[in-house]
Amino acid sequence: MAKMVIMYEKPKDTEKFDEHYFNIHVPLGRKIPNIIKDSVHRVVDTQNTDLNLYLITVLEFENLEKLLEAFASPEARQAEEDGPNLFQYLDKPPIITILD
Amino acid sequence: MAKMVIMYEKPKDTEKFDEHYFNIHVPLGRKIPNIIKDSVHRVVDTQNTDLNLYLITVLEFENLEKLLEAFASPEARQAEEDGPNLFQYLDKPPIITILD
Repeated sequence: MAKMVIMYEKPKDTEKFDEHYFNIHVPLGRKIPNIIKDSVHRVVDTQNTDLNLYLITVLEFENLEKLLEAFASPEARQAEEDGPNLFQYLDKPPIITILD
Repeated sequence: MAKMVIMYEKPKDTEKFDEHYFNIHVPLGRKIPNIIKDSVHRVVDTQNTDLNLYLITVLEFENLEKLLEAFASPEARQAEEDGPNLFQYLDKPPIITILD
């Protein structure tokens, strides 16, 4: 099972971020192929870091090959192209990790 | 679904860390009640951060109440007490996030 974990720190404007994220970005992300499961989580508590984590999204794939294939798709490009619309409400882009 | 995400940066001694983590710490962690699913992942790639992420463990629980109950258990205390044995191979303790 491979995962992509996307970690957003607290937005400059949480209301506008949430609105764009849940209404526009998540639906675009859900069009990406090969995703077995996706979950969007509020961060309740964080320890041992200065990061002000706010929201973490976990995307699950059968394996790393399926994940890489997914992110080479036109649907992934469309979701990435929406990034700047979202990033305007953030101080910095989200931390993205790919896990095998 | 609530999750605990534990993020380890690259250890000072990866071999000794891995040995202790997989042989001692993970089996202790698996005794903690209420865990629906656990997964330990190697970090393949990281973007938009200076963190040198190495290993990420995700623990899943039915809900936040079950998660908090789990971490108040004697089994969780035992796993926590093993922390220092593991941390000797790290520059800093892992980032821990609790997600709802």
